[in-house]
Amino acid sequence: MDKITYKPIGKINTPFKRGKGTPIQPPAGKGIEGKIKLYPEYQKGLKDLDGFSHIILLYHMHKAKKYKLLAKPYMDNKTKGIFAIRAPSRPNPIGFSIVKLTKIKNNILYIQDLDILDETPLLDIKPWVGEFDDRENIKTGWLEDNVHKLHKTSADGRFEKK
Amino acid sequence: MDKITYKPIGKINTPFKRGKGTPIQPPAGKGIEGKIKLYPEYQKGLKDLDGFSHIILLYHMHKAKKYKLLAKPYMDNKTKGIFAIRAPSRPNPIGFSIVKLTKIKNNILYIQDLDILDETPLLDIKPWVGEFDDRENIKTGWLEDNVHKLHKTSADGRFEKK
Repeated sequence: MDKITYKPIGKINTPFKRGKGTPIQPPAGKGIEGKIKLYPEYQKGLKDLDGFSHIILLYHMHKAKKYKLLAKPYMDNKTKGIFAIRAPSRPNPIGFSIVKLTKIKNNILYIQDLDILDETPLLDIKPWVGEFDDRENIKTGWLEDNVHKLHKTSADGRFEKK
Repeated sequence: MDKITYKPIGKINTPFKRGKGTPIQPPAGKGIEGKIKLYPEYQKGLKDLDGFSHIILLYHMHKAKKYKLLAKPYMDNKTKGIFAIRAPSRPNPIGFSIVKLTKIKNNILYIQDLDILDETPLLDIKPWVGEFDDRENIKTGWLEDNVHKLHKTSADGRFEKK
């Protein structure tokens, strides 16, 4: 299989017009509010989603510049492999965020705790389920000494297209 | 943005040749072993990943048949919206699994706890980090009364292409 083609199912609207200053993960964007405008032809697929407090969003990071296989993450000043960091400039720039779902009205989803740029094309919504998606006894490599910087760090535009 | 094109970065090999009998989530596939063959041109991007015990895989569910916006999930017999369930037949069939990483040797990653079909095209690897990806005080809608069936349930091929 050589190429895979997807079609956005909607758009994500957030207060973040530029990379610079955007929270680097949802827990660092606590309380930040936004909306998903699902294209109306997909609205029927939202049935029963309102029972879930948290949803997984997969989206196309449309502002990410071309990747390098080694890059400096925000929370350390040493270069890492791109698959060992969460930077948006990746071979396939698919973003992944778990956000709070506060309300659904027709094809509009009201969401919170955001680290996503405005106008981002949405690819999928999945319900977040602890029994599927939570893990214990984990090791987090280079982040173990660095993750305490999460709430003091925001993006600086280094991965953004000019 | 009308269409988005991605290129697989490797293949996932698992014991599951068909949907029927495949675990429906990684915790139901505990101990099941497989490998990722990352295409060699991406190998440099694995630097520092070996410090992480769990990785997020995003992949193209190449055997999923065309979606319907309403579908019956494995763990209930009532129809739900496709965005409220985790079925593979979705508008954009991007799979998401958190698996155990046991070893990396050159471009081969040894993984465990699998719910993925053999020969699945891989799109992205991200490190799993509790501080980014874990959530508390959650509600899981229709699954609250049904998730106890997880370890007794496996796929039956209903979402698979003929």
